[in-house]
Amino acid sequence: MTAVTPEQLLHTGPAQRRAVAKAITLLESTRPDHRAQADTLLTELLPHTGNSFRLGISGVPGVGKSTFIEALGLYLIEQGHRVAVLAIDPSSSVSGGSILGDKTRMERLSVHERAYIRPSPASGTLGGVAEKTREAMLVCEAAGYDVVIVETVGVGQSETAVAGMTDLFVLMQLPNAGDDLQAIKKGVMELADLVVINKADLDPDAATRAQAQITSAMRLFTQHGRHHDAHADAAGKVLQLSALQSTGIQAFWQTVTRLRKQRSADGSLQARRRHQALAWMWERIEAGLRQEFRQHPAVRALLPTLTQDVEAGRLPASTAARELLNARHTR
Amino acid sequence: MTAVTPEQLLHTGPAQRRAVAKAITLLESTRPDHRAQADTLLTELLPHTGNSFRLGISGVPGVGKSTFIEALGLYLIEQGHRVAVLAIDPSSSVSGGSILGDKTRMERLSVHERAYIRPSPASGTLGGVAEKTREAMLVCEAAGYDVVIVETVGVGQSETAVAGMTDLFVLMQLPNAGDDLQAIKKGVMELADLVVINKADLDPDAATRAQAQITSAMRLFTQHGRHHDAHADAAGKVLQLSALQSTGIQAFWQTVTRLRKQRSADGSLQARRRHQALAWMWERIEAGLRQEFRQHPAVRALLPTLTQDVEAGRLPASTAARELLNARHTR
Repeated sequence: MTAVTPEQLLHTGPAQRRAVAKAITLLESTRPDHRAQADTLLTELLPHTGNSFRLGISGVPGVGKSTFIEALGLYLIEQGHRVAVLAIDPSSSVSGGSILGDKTRMERLSVHERAYIRPSPASGTLGGVAEKTREAMLVCEAAGYDVVIVETVGVGQSETAVAGMTDLFVLMQLPNAGDDLQAIKKGVMELADLVVINKADLDPDAATRAQAQITSAMRLFTQHGRHHDAHADAAGKVLQLSALQSTGIQAFWQTVTRLRKQRSADGSLQARRRHQALAWMWERIEAGLRQEFRQHPAVRALLPTLTQDVEAGRLPASTAARELLNARHTR
Repeated sequence: MTAVTPEQLLHTGPAQRRAVAKAITLLESTRPDHRAQADTLLTELLPHTGNSFRLGISGVPGVGKSTFIEALGLYLIEQGHRVAVLAIDPSSSVSGGSILGDKTRMERLSVHERAYIRPSPASGTLGGVAEKTREAMLVCEAAGYDVVIVETVGVGQSETAVAGMTDLFVLMQLPNAGDDLQAIKKGVMELADLVVINKADLDPDAATRAQAQITSAMRLFTQHGRHHDAHADAAGKVLQLSALQSTGIQAFWQTVTRLRKQRSADGSLQARRRHQALAWMWERIEAGLRQEFRQHPAVRALLPTLTQDVEAGRLPASTAARELLNARHTR
């Protein structure tokens, strides 16, 4: 792999997109020398990052994420923006392949010179995949993409990861009853800054009912929840649209822009980013500590037996933990 | 502190209760020599543990936990059981003092020779407090208390901790609307094996409405949730009672006993305990790794500056994490 220079990335032009792709491939590499190069590159790029708006989008399969992101991306390009689309695919660590961010899903957007679409990193733990995506976001920002969209599928922890790296987290819903309750159950509604009811044209009555239900659910969270600012005005934060018909896209972006301005003015956007950066640092530290621990020869030697002893009730879990921790220092 | 021997703990009699108290004080101690003694003691006691039924009870302040636990405890003693009551107070790490498990709250139960009541460990992180309580549970089991009740107040992570160390987790609710929704929001309903609506005598109509609402909420979780077994029969798992009037206590215990038998027979109780023990081991390992990391001289030297750099956007979070991890090996 030939080196990627900050200059290639920062200079807008035909070579830039290739430099972005190479830089992201570099930081996705597991080779230690690549990792060292990636660290150097990221540190050099950092002064040029942070100027984009980071938008997280989640929803169950079939909700219409690709169609929505393509319609939104094309609208934003029309408005003069440059758009990067990244993905976190929680299944990629299992399947070894990426199902999200597939370029063929967004045919018109993917060929546009002012858009860059990157599929999910294909392997590793969710924490590792999320780290690569966070770093890819910095590369895209340095390259002047001023809207970065990070999408994920609506299952489990990947939504928390995406909400934890974006300025605004959007949950997409279908206009049929039950979906909203499922979202409440999974705690995702608490993460959502905006809820979009897609395919509203297919059943306008159902979409309106869903909008009312979700709005009242979000009001409830305003009373009890932690995110007072985020949910202060629930009524304006549940939108209907049709990605396929491209209706409601402009209204969606106006809402996003209003929220962005409001949160920049009151400092909550900046506070969210500081908080995210520190949380990210500690997450990577803990992942590193776990990995070191599991690879330590003394731990590898003892772990199978101690695990069996704890499972069988022969050894207190806390004693086993201390034995394993101590074993690294005495051998 | 004079040593506590397993014999003193295992032998039922007047000296036993004092031995239990001393053993728990020993394992709550932060002195390394006490910790070593406690580890030895726990390992010796372990073959005598695991024979109790572990019951977790949570609910917001004012729901009537103490009154319920006293009524239940006295009922169980009448039935020939010996009852230990432990507590996890999530506020103790802040206040330095324990508000839960106060003996004066359960006047009749606390003086009974077949009951043992211990307040929450007074200091440390929630993880540390939870570990002490898990270990105290083992001591009580070894001493022949065959029902161990662990109570906590209905806020945040302490409920997860209690559900993670008990065989059955009971959520107490008041018979007014809204409570159920608050519980859904916090994700606690998913943890609950049983829901008890206390003070049902004060407003029977409201209690019946709440019972219906919570039952349908639990049915919803049965469809989507992970705990298929736990919520297979939602209707029988939401009970009304009045702790103050001591009505419904017997029916509550019959339900608990039915579930316990069912889960022992199908192996899910044993599987839950194995899973809890391993999760506990890994939790303590990770807590130990974090503590070691934070105390490392190289980390202590670098952390303030790197934290500032990450917050200010001068250094990528992942690079800072790697620098801190590597610093421990190069100095």
